[in-house]
Amino acid sequence: MTLADQPPAAALLFQTLLAHGPLTRAEIGRRTGLSPGAITKVATPLLTDGWITELGRPAERTAGRPATLIAVRADRACFVGVKVTGDELIGVLTDLTARTLATARAHLASRDVGTVVLAVARLADRLRAQAPPRAAGALHGIGVTISGDVDGHTGTVQYSPFLNWRRVPLARLVQTATGIPAVIENDVRALTVAEQWFGVGVGLSSFALVTVGAGIGCGISIGGRVVSGAHGVSGEVGHLPVGGTDRVCTCGNTGCVEAVASAQAITEQARRATGDPVLTMGRAVRLAHAGNTDVRAVFARAGHALGLALASVANVIGPERIIISGEGVATYDLYEEQIRTTFAARAFGAAAECDLVVRPLPFEEWARGGAAVAAQRIFAPAK
Amino acid sequence: MTLADQPPAAALLFQTLLAHGPLTRAEIGRRTGLSPGAITKVATPLLTDGWITELGRPAERTAGRPATLIAVRADRACFVGVKVTGDELIGVLTDLTARTLATARAHLASRDVGTVVLAVARLADRLRAQAPPRAAGALHGIGVTISGDVDGHTGTVQYSPFLNWRRVPLARLVQTATGIPAVIENDVRALTVAEQWFGVGVGLSSFALVTVGAGIGCGISIGGRVVSGAHGVSGEVGHLPVGGTDRVCTCGNTGCVEAVASAQAITEQARRATGDPVLTMGRAVRLAHAGNTDVRAVFARAGHALGLALASVANVIGPERIIISGEGVATYDLYEEQIRTTFAARAFGAAAECDLVVRPLPFEEWARGGAAVAAQRIFAPAK
Ligand SMILES: [Zn+2]
Ligand SMILES: [Zn+2]
Repeated sequence: MTLADQPPAAALLFQTLLAHGPLTRAEIGRRTGLSPGAITKVATPLLTDGWITELGRPAERTAGRPATLIAVRADRACFVGVKVTGDELIGVLTDLTARTLATARAHLASRDVGTVVLAVARLADRLRAQAPPRAAGALHGIGVTISGDVDGHTGTVQYSPFLNWRRVPLARLVQTATGIPAVIENDVRALTVAEQWFGVGVGLSSFALVTVGAGIGCGISIGGRVVSGAHGVSGEVGHLPVGGTDRVCTCGNTGCVEAVASAQAITEQARRATGDPVLTMGRAVRLAHAGNTDVRAVFARAGHALGLALASVANVIGPERIIISGEGVATYDLYEEQIRTTFAARAFGAAAECDLVVRPLPFEEWARGGAAVAAQRIFAPAK
Repeated sequence: MTLADQPPAAALLFQTLLAHGPLTRAEIGRRTGLSPGAITKVATPLLTDGWITELGRPAERTAGRPATLIAVRADRACFVGVKVTGDELIGVLTDLTARTLATARAHLASRDVGTVVLAVARLADRLRAQAPPRAAGALHGIGVTISGDVDGHTGTVQYSPFLNWRRVPLARLVQTATGIPAVIENDVRALTVAEQWFGVGVGLSSFALVTVGAGIGCGISIGGRVVSGAHGVSGEVGHLPVGGTDRVCTCGNTGCVEAVASAQAITEQARRATGDPVLTMGRAVRLAHAGNTDVRAVFARAGHALGLALASVANVIGPERIIISGEGVATYDLYEEQIRTTFAARAFGAAAECDLVVRPLPFEEWARGGAAVAAQRIFAPAK
């Protein structure tokens, strides 16, 4: 049996179990619309081949007789997830439920495509060697995540500014180099899949994940699905036109959120505020913490722009929760108050009830997102 | 048989047929994930009771043998849809597929809840009397749509600024007054359901419908579902903080899209530009068409703010198409160029490939949205 040969209902059942954890047959029916007969029909080959398992009877319920739970068999397959940054690869080996079994990092000597693909293949080998004995050889897929305009369906990096890549068929290259089925995804979107699946997005009807750092990114999950955008663009909150600044953004416009709130924008504004042309972000943070009002104002301005961006997301899609993450979270105390004040003032009506949650996520969590995307796609591998 | 007693799979099958039109069993399977056995099981009582029908063999296909199409039986039930404006009710009687069978309008003597509910009941009676003989007595539901914060699940108008209503249990009141199962919905969201179902949203993976007039509204459809917002707010593009103005918005903030581009904002700015304190919108439009540069600049500013709003929607959700409608479409020539220029400059990367379509929709089309929402809900009536 290969999973790609299974009917769509099998993928639906399997992905429902991946996303929601063990469920009774009745719960599966409610979530998928599948009849009891259809569930039995699609579950049988998956049970036989060990992809799912029956967990026996759970503790007695208040109403009705106890029912058997069906769960994904976590140890049935391993996956590698990799996040590519400008100078480093961060990799994880996970089980089928994206639980981390091993981690590894690798320095990137250069950003050219061949070097990166080779480094990914070597990292996958190192991680594969760390697979638990029982799972050895059962590496079912690799998911590589990268910032920029990434088309997961065709497996192509359309444009990655920080690597300066255009139209790179990365999934095919990684698959050839590793011999493992490969998928690729935008890094923030993959992290959103991970948060939806096993993070603080679990069980929410909708949420947005906003990442603050070198750029400002955003992943959006509605009804258990990550919004990908009809043309591959979604969650581009960094270039929302919120006004209030004459600084020119990397995109050429003025008034963008990133033009005020990206790490580089903050550093440049702090340099101008202090008159120190080589001021670093670390030093700017120390000055702000020491009470330098000019530098504090730079962070407050960034917080205001971020608050406007979060309010825009809340007004447009009305998420249940907004998760704030990324490297910028390390200095969150310097702009949290301004973010929350601006958000409260600009989120319209009940949209302001949206919960703002700050959550530091190390790059290994981002890499897990790659493994989660790979695990989700085993029923329909990338073309 | 009552539809509310049918299993979830029956609602799934029925709503898929409503949204997509006649489908073969294989197409139903692909769209719903239901097995052939499950489709037969849920379709049988619906066929027996006349909700769906088999259309016989379609014209021969190029590949494979021809297959029977299953379709909703349009004449199986009638629905009333009503749009409430500040001084008028616009009503339609439709069949099960929201095809219009009759229309009627009624003046509102006042905006108090009792007056509006009674007027809705009278309008429904007039429309019911116009039902075609075969459908008489088969009025299955009424859908009332209204601008503002409307909670369709509880049937409550949380807040409608132009009626000055707060927490009005409108669905229950209309149901009591008419004796017909009643649902309510935000008017722009209902129009989005209608466009998704039988308008220019048919077959799109995602689209946004932006309405320009007294306010600036927006409905969003992703993956065939209208985004409702976790807290009842979504598509609030009128209050997106796009900056560029010191005018105070009705919400109390500055920099909102509506503060520059609503009908009232345009009129007020044209009054200031001309020094004529009683200038009407009609006169402003005539002045602009006659080449008055000051008044033309007012419309251009509105177009710029609308372009920023559309770009924000495109950047956040990346829709395949944005439909522009509402009364403001009548003067679209005065700001179209500015909308398109600003949109092209501010939509990020491939998000700019989103198609902008202008589409005048009379209030009867909005009222059809109410009927469509009512038809969608017959499987799960409002609580
Ligand atoms: Zn920008
Ligand atoms: Zn406003």
